[in-house]
Amino acid sequence: MLTDDNPLPDGIPEELRRQLEFVIEVDQMKSVIRQTSIATGERRENDAEHSWHLTLMALVFASRAKEPVDLVRVLSMLVVHDLVEIYAGDTPLHIVDDQQEARERDAADQLFPLLPGAQGQQLREAWEEFEAHETPEARFARSLDRMQPLLLEWMNRGVHWLEQGRTSSAARERLKVIDDGSPDLWTAALALIEEAESRGYLLDE
Amino acid sequence: MLTDDNPLPDGIPEELRRQLEFVIEVDQMKSVIRQTSIATGERRENDAEHSWHLTLMALVFASRAKEPVDLVRVLSMLVVHDLVEIYAGDTPLHIVDDQQEARERDAADQLFPLLPGAQGQQLREAWEEFEAHETPEARFARSLDRMQPLLLEWMNRGVHWLEQGRTSSAARERLKVIDDGSPDLWTAALALIEEAESRGYLLDE
Repeated sequence: MLTDDNPLPDGIPEELRRQLEFVIEVDQMKSVIRQTSIATGERRENDAEHSWHLTLMALVFASRAKEPVDLVRVLSMLVVHDLVEIYAGDTPLHIVDDQQEARERDAADQLFPLLPGAQGQQLREAWEEFEAHETPEARFARSLDRMQPLLLEWMNRGVHWLEQGRTSSAARERLKVIDDGSPDLWTAALALIEEAESRGYLLDE
Repeated sequence: MLTDDNPLPDGIPEELRRQLEFVIEVDQMKSVIRQTSIATGERRENDAEHSWHLTLMALVFASRAKEPVDLVRVLSMLVVHDLVEIYAGDTPLHIVDDQQEARERDAADQLFPLLPGAQGQQLREAWEEFEAHETPEARFARSLDRMQPLLLEWMNRGVHWLEQGRTSSAARERLKVIDDGSPDLWTAALALIEEAESRGYLLDE
């Protein structure tokens, strides 16, 4: 995003300069548009807004994680989990293809080395931890990542669900991993899905 | 933002319901428009995007804090620091008036009690800690909060500075608190301000 005719000024030490350039590069998160609309329905949300919303949810729901979690790791994962979409684009859950993993790995190879060595590796590991969902922190983070669009879709009365012809049983199937990170949130998700079906925000079978 | 004809469904326990309602309420952060434009210059950024960008900066610059910081406190403060603007609006630094503090306190009185007791108080305390800038964490968080718009304004070649007739010495004065939280970032800020003046992004005296 920095251009040759407007580079950061000389006199900033190399390592600091690379960090600042990274911070500017990832500003592009604000232009990666997601499938879900903001609660007012006025427009779709972007990855930066979504990521912030998840960190706020982590603070609110931390004590509802299935297992005790290290909050700084949860927050770090949520802050970086969508960065690769700057280069790989947002791939909605319902159209994930078999190239997506490779696309996102290529994006990570391009993005994280912009940072000075060890730090780039550290942020990459947070992203990989999130993707692998093998730790309590990653599973909790994933629960938030699935719960948030459900809440927004509720606020939007299922507008995108209906566009996609989504059924309530498909929604339950897709969202059941919420239970792995937070049984409490899964209880709420089930109540929302059931009521969404009876209100016609989701199709019944 | 929840309306009487589309409330959260029954069957969600009271405390969890209040947390979910809070999460939906603060979605309005995505519609609080700031003075600064995103790096591409296409549009102004909003508070949700700004807050996310600061948490990313906290991860990148943590080791550059003036004093050792507890990262989870820094991140928590950054996530909540602008929530009161949902009700109080964004008050740009150059037009802060003497009612602003009262307006933001009223907003906090309205917002944080939406959460169940102790939790609302906890998030309020994070906001108050940020506002008081008396702890190393709060001073570092404030440094990030001042550094981020400087980077964006650099990317926008001073468009809003010039609109406001900002001089380089006024910019230095306004931003010097960056030094209290991160001398390294202050070094970079000074280089940016100096170069901004010579490029005509800031007025000289």
